[in-house]
Amino acid sequence: MILAASVLEGNRLALARLLTQIENDSSEGQAALSELFPRTGQAHLIGVTGAPGTGKSTLVNQLARFYRQQGDESERKQVGIVAVDPSSPFTGGAILGDRVRMRDLAGDPGVFIRSMASRGSLGGLARATAGIVQAMDAAGYDLILIETVGAGQAEVDIARLAHTTIVIEAPGLGDDIQAIKAGIMEIADLLVINKADRPGVDATERALRGSLQLAHPVEKIFRHHGPQVTEQPSEQILAEKRIWSPPILRVVATEGTGVQELAQAIQQHRQFLEETGGWQRRERVRLQSELDTILQAFLVARWHAKAPDQLYQQILDKIVARELSPWQAVQALLNGGAA
Amino acid sequence: MILAASVLEGNRLALARLLTQIENDSSEGQAALSELFPRTGQAHLIGVTGAPGTGKSTLVNQLARFYRQQGDESERKQVGIVAVDPSSPFTGGAILGDRVRMRDLAGDPGVFIRSMASRGSLGGLARATAGIVQAMDAAGYDLILIETVGAGQAEVDIARLAHTTIVIEAPGLGDDIQAIKAGIMEIADLLVINKADRPGVDATERALRGSLQLAHPVEKIFRHHGPQVTEQPSEQILAEKRIWSPPILRVVATEGTGVQELAQAIQQHRQFLEETGGWQRRERVRLQSELDTILQAFLVARWHAKAPDQLYQQILDKIVARELSPWQAVQALLNGGAA
Repeated sequence: MILAASVLEGNRLALARLLTQIENDSSEGQAALSELFPRTGQAHLIGVTGAPGTGKSTLVNQLARFYRQQGDESERKQVGIVAVDPSSPFTGGAILGDRVRMRDLAGDPGVFIRSMASRGSLGGLARATAGIVQAMDAAGYDLILIETVGAGQAEVDIARLAHTTIVIEAPGLGDDIQAIKAGIMEIADLLVINKADRPGVDATERALRGSLQLAHPVEKIFRHHGPQVTEQPSEQILAEKRIWSPPILRVVATEGTGVQELAQAIQQHRQFLEETGGWQRRERVRLQSELDTILQAFLVARWHAKAPDQLYQQILDKIVARELSPWQAVQALLNGGAA
Repeated sequence: MILAASVLEGNRLALARLLTQIENDSSEGQAALSELFPRTGQAHLIGVTGAPGTGKSTLVNQLARFYRQQGDESERKQVGIVAVDPSSPFTGGAILGDRVRMRDLAGDPGVFIRSMASRGSLGGLARATAGIVQAMDAAGYDLILIETVGAGQAEVDIARLAHTTIVIEAPGLGDDIQAIKAGIMEIADLLVINKADRPGVDATERALRGSLQLAHPVEKIFRHHGPQVTEQPSEQILAEKRIWSPPILRVVATEGTGVQELAQAIQQHRQFLEETGGWQRRERVRLQSELDTILQAFLVARWHAKAPDQLYQQILDKIVARELSPWQAVQALLNGGAA
């Protein structure tokens, strides 16, 4: 296929086209992804998440810039950035972010940036993000930064894509930030306090250390939640957890302070994963999650293709009239209706 | 069924038990919900969402307290509160919130509070929330406040449950709050600036007015995103949108300032929906969304029950080895495997 071949040759326009096809869930995009899939698995996938106001985008930009200034031109890492904004389901808000970045990293052929706004369902977004990361991986980007807003289940799902997850905090962001941290803390491999020149940074660090001590073992997120649970060897994971204690790093992204240390910590986490088998384990969980997501979408589409639309509408009418509960309706559709 | 009957009689313990069964996705809970379903459709479902730090919980508490102090004891509204926290997938963080509330609204038999943390998939959370709201509706709660953290797709999905959606802002919550508002603005029926005694409230109101003008018609969220799209009559919806312009209300929830005006605006929105047919339209979209969610879960469970686990694991091995892409794997599973 011409598109896939062009992507492998490093054609940026071809990559941009492919990413659009993946976002649009086109069959052409799927075919190209399948062709590219054997070439994936090389990139270090780095998730970056945190509440609004923590300065994620600035930090991601600075990290990318740092990687692009390291060493000789020939040995410089290629950096992909995927900015996922599940909070913009209807608007092009993410595009503005793109423009701001473009000014910053403009013209560097070793950086590729893609912003994604949510379209329709969250499942669709996670699936498209996985596809976009794969395409960049196949295209030869060594480090792929996956940036998401917020700290909800959506972000946990997207962070599950990554080998290394960075959770960003900042001093003085309001009262119930603490509550949010509890859940997100357990997916964090690295903790960053950005805007560390602001007042309250010590209190933020104390709060983070406290949350870290309370956090449950990372085990749970490596179990898959579908009906088909693959039990991960929990001793292995606990061993991984016991050894890797998420460091807390202070950064002032706007000034570049602490960015080099962050890049070092990212590299240390990668080495740790490789030495403990964590890299392969995360790969497997990630790919299983992707398999299940696609499987689910196919099952629903196949059912709708076979089921008579008239029956579906009649059943819906009965639910609205409170003659059938939604559960009873599904039974009626699956038994009485099409396959 | 005894449980359903006890819930209809107003037995709080029975309701609490049923909600736990719904959260656990038990077949007993499903059966009870189906039995209760004909008694639903009476409650006014009010979604309340906003970023962390906007003071959602305090506002929801004050609204509940206001409703419980209106009129004679006999004519007082019964209030249900469902606090959904998709950001706490692993911890009991929501329970702490419960305790804080309990102190506030303690001992009032006309208030029922339930906190939910995300379990596993987001789809599961939305489904459980829908079930919990239905159970409270059948149990006779007149107003059900559905509170969610954040402004992501998760919250949009949960807000879709409601007849009236309130989006809360607060002055001075950081730089990239603006970006978040774009998406959430289009689901807002009422906009609240909480903590309106703080500096910056005028700037926040200006920003909200600007975002409101930019917001696209509400139409899109009333189209369903599944493969089986029911086209809503868009002229009707645009008419609804043209007439209803979301008011911006200033509130200081901690002091109760503006809470009465908010309750009035909620009532006005309800009247507006009833007069324009919007109430029925939202009911239908909500129930269709619920139908599709349950249908999807059933399809996936049915497939896994039939498919040989060994085949699934073999296929997953091939993905990890990059011999099959996830898309190819799904084809192999659906064609070569079980139904």
